[in-house]
Order: sequence, then structure tokens, then C-alpha cells
Amino acid sequence: MKVDPSQRSRPIGVFDSGLGGLTVAAELAELLPGEDIVYLGDSARVPYGIKSLETVRRFAREDAKFLLGMDPKLLVVACNTASAAAIDTLRDLSGVSVVDVIAPGSAEAITCGEGPVGAVATEATIRSGAYQATLESLAPGREVHLAACPLLVPIVEEGRAEDDPIVTHVLCDYLRDMLRVRPTSLILGCTHYPLLSRAIGKLMGPDTTLISSGAAAARDVARVLEACDAKNPQDAPGQLDCYTTDNPERFAKLGERFGRRKLTSVHYVGTDELELNFS
Amino acid sequence: MKVDPSQRSRPIGVFDSGLGGLTVAAELAELLPGEDIVYLGDSARVPYGIKSLETVRRFAREDAKFLLGMDPKLLVVACNTASAAAIDTLRDLSGVSVVDVIAPGSAEAITCGEGPVGAVATEATIRSGAYQATLESLAPGREVHLAACPLLVPIVEEGRAEDDPIVTHVLCDYLRDMLRVRPTSLILGCTHYPLLSRAIGKLMGPDTTLISSGAAAARDVARVLEACDAKNPQDAPGQLDCYTTDNPERFAKLGERFGRRKLTSVHYVGTDELELNFS
Repeated sequence: MKVDPSQRSRPIGVFDSGLGGLTVAAELAELLPGEDIVYLGDSARVPYGIKSLETVRRFAREDAKFLLGMDPKLLVVACNTASAAAIDTLRDLSGVSVVDVIAPGSAEAITCGEGPVGAVATEATIRSGAYQATLESLAPGREVHLAACPLLVPIVEEGRAEDDPIVTHVLCDYLRDMLRVRPTSLILGCTHYPLLSRAIGKLMGPDTTLISSGAAAARDVARVLEACDAKNPQDAPGQLDCYTTDNPERFAKLGERFGRRKLTSVHYVGTDELELNFS
Repeated sequence: MKVDPSQRSRPIGVFDSGLGGLTVAAELAELLPGEDIVYLGDSARVPYGIKSLETVRRFAREDAKFLLGMDPKLLVVACNTASAAAIDTLRDLSGVSVVDVIAPGSAEAITCGEGPVGAVATEATIRSGAYQATLESLAPGREVHLAACPLLVPIVEEGRAEDDPIVTHVLCDYLRDMLRVRPTSLILGCTHYPLLSRAIGKLMGPDTTLISSGAAAARDVARVLEACDAKNPQDAPGQLDCYTTDNPERFAKLGERFGRRKLTSVHYVGTDELELNFS
């Protein structure tokens, strides 16, 4: 379908429980440098991955509703747990295309070969069954192996180096079964995990292709915009405007590592405002 | 001061960012078996220890306000981060005595001897400077050593055994400097940490006394109630009524390990209700 040209200059909305989704924003900026991005990181209520799916669903609805108020042309759910818990709800409430991080990563993972597919993710994402269901629908009968890795998000947030012995010990612990399986592809099913991809890749060895769910989602966004003729035609580099529910200075400081650039435009929005906005 | 006898049967209000404060509720139930306790665990927004102090202060005010609606005779801030960020604000808004977890633990720690005092806590608690300031005011000039241990809360929440090699590696990493100092006492400045006290004690050795900030706070509550003649005179064991901002079944299931008993009365309260309640 063709898109009304006035829509092309509307921003892409991206939200995550905190900083992790900035890795997706960085991929988007690389693939689609002309696009403006409005990012919401719910740092006051982070992490989502240890909470019940109904609470995550409520938070995700509030986050999406806030971004929809910015009139985006497309919404990216840059959080695997929110994608797992709420993608159908979010599609129902949004009047625009919604790209999640579970379907694109799963689609890339099954094209790497015929062998088993692995996925590592937060406890809530694994508990939701979303990866199992998505992979089963895309490649019925394909062997699937999942591992919940609750400590990886706090390890990344703590800023430990990838060659830190603690990182190695924790990865060995979580990936013990995965190493026996030797999957053809391993989905990094949390937007924090690409920051450990060198360590995970070293452990898994060269026969397992690592799939970043966020990078796969960014490629999906590019395909959708291309198909709809909705890419921003501007030559100037797009803006990245961030909103956070916690302290903006702290978000800007810690977010650089995830977003791979200086974050110059970070604003505060209270969770009370998100909740009022929704009710 | 004497207390109006009708006040004696009012409950003790206890709040925490999540499950950790149930360790304080368990200590209270042991010391003061006749007391009714109303507990609020803000599991939807847990943890507080990685967030900015202003956000923690806002959450703590909302939590306290909710409990004050239950007409408690005393309020316990069973979260070190909330105590560090908000104790003055909470005392201002409460019309009842407020017991925190930082002052009682610090007071016990300095009585263990003349040597250095150590404290381990979350990143936000350490960043607040509350332990440093409290210890300095109680024992001016005493040598104080602090260590932020961001991974310990998620490790306890994950349910790892104390002799798990990951637990040992992480503790060795955080306590490296503390081991050189060999403090006379080490404050476990987070209500999750008593669940690792065997492992921490083994590492620190017999010359360091471990101080549980929660157990110290419970002893402080007993002293306050005794001094005010406000103890509940009932012979029957007190009730423990819990409220959580996340799923109540999940809270009841995971909370048993912290509360050291079955949690039979757990109710849901939304964070939207806490926020409306406050505004």
C-alpha cells in the first residue's frame, strides 16, 4: 500500500522497560538514518522480565499509549518481555503497524539451517511460551531449546566487561544444556543480551549463529516502511528524542553504552502520567 | 509515654520494594508474636536499589501513604534503599512512629567492638551516603567501609543455594576489599542479604559479626512498643496481611522463603491506586 506522503515524516515510536531497547534504536538509526525516533524507557519500573505477565501487559499498554500520543507512523515493542506478554493487546489498541522483537528474531533463526533453534531470554519471556509458540508456527516440528537467564540483565546493567570471570561463570551455568544441544542458531531474546554477544559467541562456538532479536526487529521495520513507501525522505540525520520514567541525567549517562551515541534529548515523564494517560 | 489502650490492637505497618521485607516481618512475628502486621510489597516496581533517589522517594511516600490508610500504630520501612532515600520525608508525613532499617543496624554494628565497621547494600543505598552519615553520627571517627553489591538481590530472587559456585564467585568479587579490612562487624544493609548470611559469614570468618539490618529494626520496634506501653496484649498469634502491586499468587509462592511461613492472606493493590491515593 502507498502511504500519504505527510505520514513519512512522522517519527518511529520505540519503547522498552529501560535502557535495553536503545540497542534497537541504534540499529534503526544505522539502517534508517533519516528516521526520527521517539523512545520511551520505563526505568522507574524496570525490569519487566521478573514480573507477572498481567503486570507487564498493563505497563506495556501504558507505554504504548504514551508513544501513540506522539503520533508515530509505526510502533516498535523493543522489549522481549512486553512483546511476549502484550503484542496482541498492543496491536488492538494501536492504529499503526506494531513491530515486536520476537517474531523477526524467530524468523531469522529458522533460516540459519535445519538444526535446533535455541533462545535465551528473561524468566517472564520464557514463562510466557511466546518463543516456543512463534517458532512452532514458523517451523512446525523444529527442535527448540529455551533457557531463562535472570542474572544477565543485572550483569549488563552493572557494566561488567564481557571477559569478567563472573560473566563467564554465569554464562557457562545458563548455557550448559544449550552447549550440549549445539543449536544452529541462538536467539538473544532480550535487548540487553547483545552487549554480551562476544562472550556468548565465544562460548557457543562458530557453528551457532547468534541472532539479535533487536537487530532483526530493526530490519523488519525497514522492510515494513519500504513496503508501505513510508520511509522518511529527509537527507538530514533523524532525531532521537528519549523519555524516561526515572532520572533523565542518569538515563542519558547509562544509556550511551546501549544506544552507541550521546543522548542529548532526554525528558522525564512520570509513571503517574502514564497511568492517568491510560485510564 | 503511655499509649491509649485502644491503640495497642492496631497493626504494625511494614513496607518494602518487594519480598525482602518479609524477612523483617518474620523477625517481628518471632519477637512480638501477638502483633498484627500489614505488609506492602511493591513487587510491580521492584527493585528500588538500582533507581534514582528521587524516584525511590516518590515510591516510598506512596507505599507509606497506603499503609497509613490502614491505621497502623507504627510504620516500619523495611527497605534499606527507601530508608536511605526517604526516612525524613516519611517521618514528616506519618503521624506515627517510623522505624527504619539503617539506624538500628548501624547502632548494633558499632557496639560489636572498636574496629572498622563494614556495610554491604544496593547501589542506591551506598550512593545515598546514608550508612556513612549514620555511622559517622553514632561513632565519629570510626573507620567505615562500604560495598555496593548490585547482583545479590537478583541472585537471592533467583533462589540460588548459598553454596552455589556463582554465589561464591560473586561474593568473593564484592567482598575482596572487605576481606582485606576484616571489619569487626558487617551490616547486611539490604533485607535480601540475610538469605545469604551463611555464605557471607563463611567468607568473612568468625572475627566479623554479621548484623542483619532487618532483625535489628525488629528489635528496635519491640523497644519502641515496650517504651510506649503499646504492645498488643492479645494471646492469639497475630495476623499477617499482605498487599502486593504484582500478582498475589506469585507473591504468596515466592514470599514463603523470605517470610519463613505460609502466606495465606495476600491481596492485590495497583500502583495506579497507590499513586492516586497519594496525589
